[in-house]
Amino acid sequence: MAVQTVASTTDSAAGTSVDLGPAAALSCRECGHRVPLGPVFACEECFGPLEIAYDFSAYDTEELRKRIEAGPANIWRYAPLLPVPADVATKPNLNPGWTKLVKADNLARELGVDAGKLFVKDDSGNPTHSFKDRVVAQALEAARAFGFTTLSCSSTGNLAGAVGAAAARAGFRSCVFIPHDLEQGKVVMAAVYGGELVGIEGNYDDVNRFCSELIGDPAGEGWGFVNVNLRPYYAEGSKTLAYEICEQLGWQLPDQIVVPIASGSQLTKIDKGLQELIKLGLVEDRPYKIFGAQAEGCSPVSTAYKAGHDVVRPQKPNTIAKSLAIGNPADGPYVLDIARRTGGAVEDVTDEQVVDAIKLLARTEGIFAETAGGVTVGVTRKLLESGALDPSLTTVVLNTGDGLKTLDAVAGTGLTATIRPSLDSFREAGLA
Amino acid sequence: MAVQTVASTTDSAAGTSVDLGPAAALSCRECGHRVPLGPVFACEECFGPLEIAYDFSAYDTEELRKRIEAGPANIWRYAPLLPVPADVATKPNLNPGWTKLVKADNLARELGVDAGKLFVKDDSGNPTHSFKDRVVAQALEAARAFGFTTLSCSSTGNLAGAVGAAAARAGFRSCVFIPHDLEQGKVVMAAVYGGELVGIEGNYDDVNRFCSELIGDPAGEGWGFVNVNLRPYYAEGSKTLAYEICEQLGWQLPDQIVVPIASGSQLTKIDKGLQELIKLGLVEDRPYKIFGAQAEGCSPVSTAYKAGHDVVRPQKPNTIAKSLAIGNPADGPYVLDIARRTGGAVEDVTDEQVVDAIKLLARTEGIFAETAGGVTVGVTRKLLESGALDPSLTTVVLNTGDGLKTLDAVAGTGLTATIRPSLDSFREAGLA
Repeated sequence: MAVQTVASTTDSAAGTSVDLGPAAALSCRECGHRVPLGPVFACEECFGPLEIAYDFSAYDTEELRKRIEAGPANIWRYAPLLPVPADVATKPNLNPGWTKLVKADNLARELGVDAGKLFVKDDSGNPTHSFKDRVVAQALEAARAFGFTTLSCSSTGNLAGAVGAAAARAGFRSCVFIPHDLEQGKVVMAAVYGGELVGIEGNYDDVNRFCSELIGDPAGEGWGFVNVNLRPYYAEGSKTLAYEICEQLGWQLPDQIVVPIASGSQLTKIDKGLQELIKLGLVEDRPYKIFGAQAEGCSPVSTAYKAGHDVVRPQKPNTIAKSLAIGNPADGPYVLDIARRTGGAVEDVTDEQVVDAIKLLARTEGIFAETAGGVTVGVTRKLLESGALDPSLTTVVLNTGDGLKTLDAVAGTGLTATIRPSLDSFREAGLA
Repeated sequence: MAVQTVASTTDSAAGTSVDLGPAAALSCRECGHRVPLGPVFACEECFGPLEIAYDFSAYDTEELRKRIEAGPANIWRYAPLLPVPADVATKPNLNPGWTKLVKADNLARELGVDAGKLFVKDDSGNPTHSFKDRVVAQALEAARAFGFTTLSCSSTGNLAGAVGAAAARAGFRSCVFIPHDLEQGKVVMAAVYGGELVGIEGNYDDVNRFCSELIGDPAGEGWGFVNVNLRPYYAEGSKTLAYEICEQLGWQLPDQIVVPIASGSQLTKIDKGLQELIKLGLVEDRPYKIFGAQAEGCSPVSTAYKAGHDVVRPQKPNTIAKSLAIGNPADGPYVLDIARRTGGAVEDVTDEQVVDAIKLLARTEGIFAETAGGVTVGVTRKLLESGALDPSLTTVVLNTGDGLKTLDAVAGTGLTATIRPSLDSFREAGLA
């Protein structure tokens, strides 16, 4: 199948016959124009982003709840709400999700949050230790449905590993594009799964531009780029964070939720997921607030939020939180909408605050977060201090990655003492 | 409470009143001598290792099965079979376990195992990404029961992180002892949880000797060394691997199971767990074979196995599989017994074969294993080639750790191509 970027309503080849469960069509987020399901991501009318439109009309609330609760301990318990076939759990994939929602009473005490009210959704428990496994798993099912045989992406880190691992398990060829001068550790992590790992002579923008070119070329035929031509499907994976949080809270909405912002897609899909649960009657309809978290060194959305702007001015990233370092976030305006509509906010923290927050989370809850988790915990602290977050309400903070992947951030951490192997030396060091 | 190494039957202070669920006493593995539950690990009669004796007499098989299946998605679903209080799931801990049992059909194809018969038990999904979270969680409950306030261990890697994280979550002080010249990455991983991390001027043997000295000294009062004075409790955590494997196979014993050997404790406790399930009627009683896996550079048990010896001669370790590098494995003789009794074997592989096996598992199943996982997969391949493993039987291979912690082992892995950001360059590289 030839790859295309813009859908046409007259294009039936794009897959009216594909079985992606409740996914009924693609719908433009800007103008509402609908097109059949296919490997396209931009509206032919207005070039707005396409997203999945569902048909949930057949669901009975209590039957659905029972079906979910009887499902597997991974994202496929929510298959009835995702763009995947009903038998998805039987297909080879990494089965991500159903990660721990940790009641963080020690952290709550340090931050002045009421006991029992603060939770960390710890996505480091996913198969490749980041939330990217959730979104790649959706893209993989779309790739299967559209007959693609190669799974691809541009990446500088977590996504490369998630795509490589998912393709390996599912029997796809994978070809991941990264800047040629990436840190050796990240290259190893992406290369170990045995797919093609191609270094592009240039920066991440050059990598992205090349990928867009490849999608439009015959050489890209049969290629599913998870975060480009499969993006509408891919992005839906973030809804599962919302589903899991609510189910793990006993089918309750959280009052407040703190989400990291890279492209902004995750935050918008968490909002979409919460709205779906409300409409389906799976949770009670009551207000919730969504807060966005950025690093100061890449804070285009929080800058716009604080300035009261509706548009997001691109920035050149300079922060240790590299998994969030998207200077021109595609979903930035939608994030601003959601933060303002729900009564949330968007805030940023310095790299120093990120490191402090990583250490704070580790020493209070035993969770070693990636820099992105340092950003959300740091922003949570800042928003509590400013009064934007209410310490008496149920609050969920996302940790979307794993500290083992960003060891450099806490490289200053080390031995608290060095002693000789003797009790005298032990006592002299004041350890007794 | 004063810490002691050897129990006395007349010592009631050691805790006849402690509530550790079905744990009834400590029993010597060598002579069967029983003493009350307490922080002791060696028999006063014969200096044999003490292990937990349970009272499971009150359990009805079907009620127990239902209770387990209705339990949480972590090791505490098996609380009725562990030395922990019944309300353990309500106490702050890392809630490890219930990791994925991956049907490894791609790996099976490569190794010549029948489709649907090969499984990888992937313990990299634990909170600190190794099976050590299972054992530390048991030691933590014992530490609580005995009134300890400091959690401690000697370690060169996985255990340090598991103890640091568990202590942080549970509100214990932690003090971890490591050789002072450990690799910086490992130091960071252990230090981030904020406990005391003490470098000992000496090698790992010196660290261990110092810890034993500290346990006998007043300075060690109130200290629970998870792998020394709490070892009988700690070791029981490995039983949960056996429980999970059988439950995940639909309450069936595996025919063959391949287990890494460090001290050998894990293998012996997996056997104990399988035997318990048989006695409790939770699985059908039929033969199973347990295979032990070592790295050639530290293969005291496989050397003894192959030579037909009952005793294990210590070796000086020299292998990249550092988490298995125990040259004088305490449970070596028991491992030999079990391998011979069940019709299994003990085998070893070279470091080169370990690396090959890590890559094989990654490219077939998307699982990035620690070197210990490379050892088990490599040994599985070798045992299939020799005919010791039957490719038509249900076989479970353990991956007990995470590749992110032993990146150096696959540091040679890298880019498959480097190109300019152009389609011409892409085609020239033969990637189209």
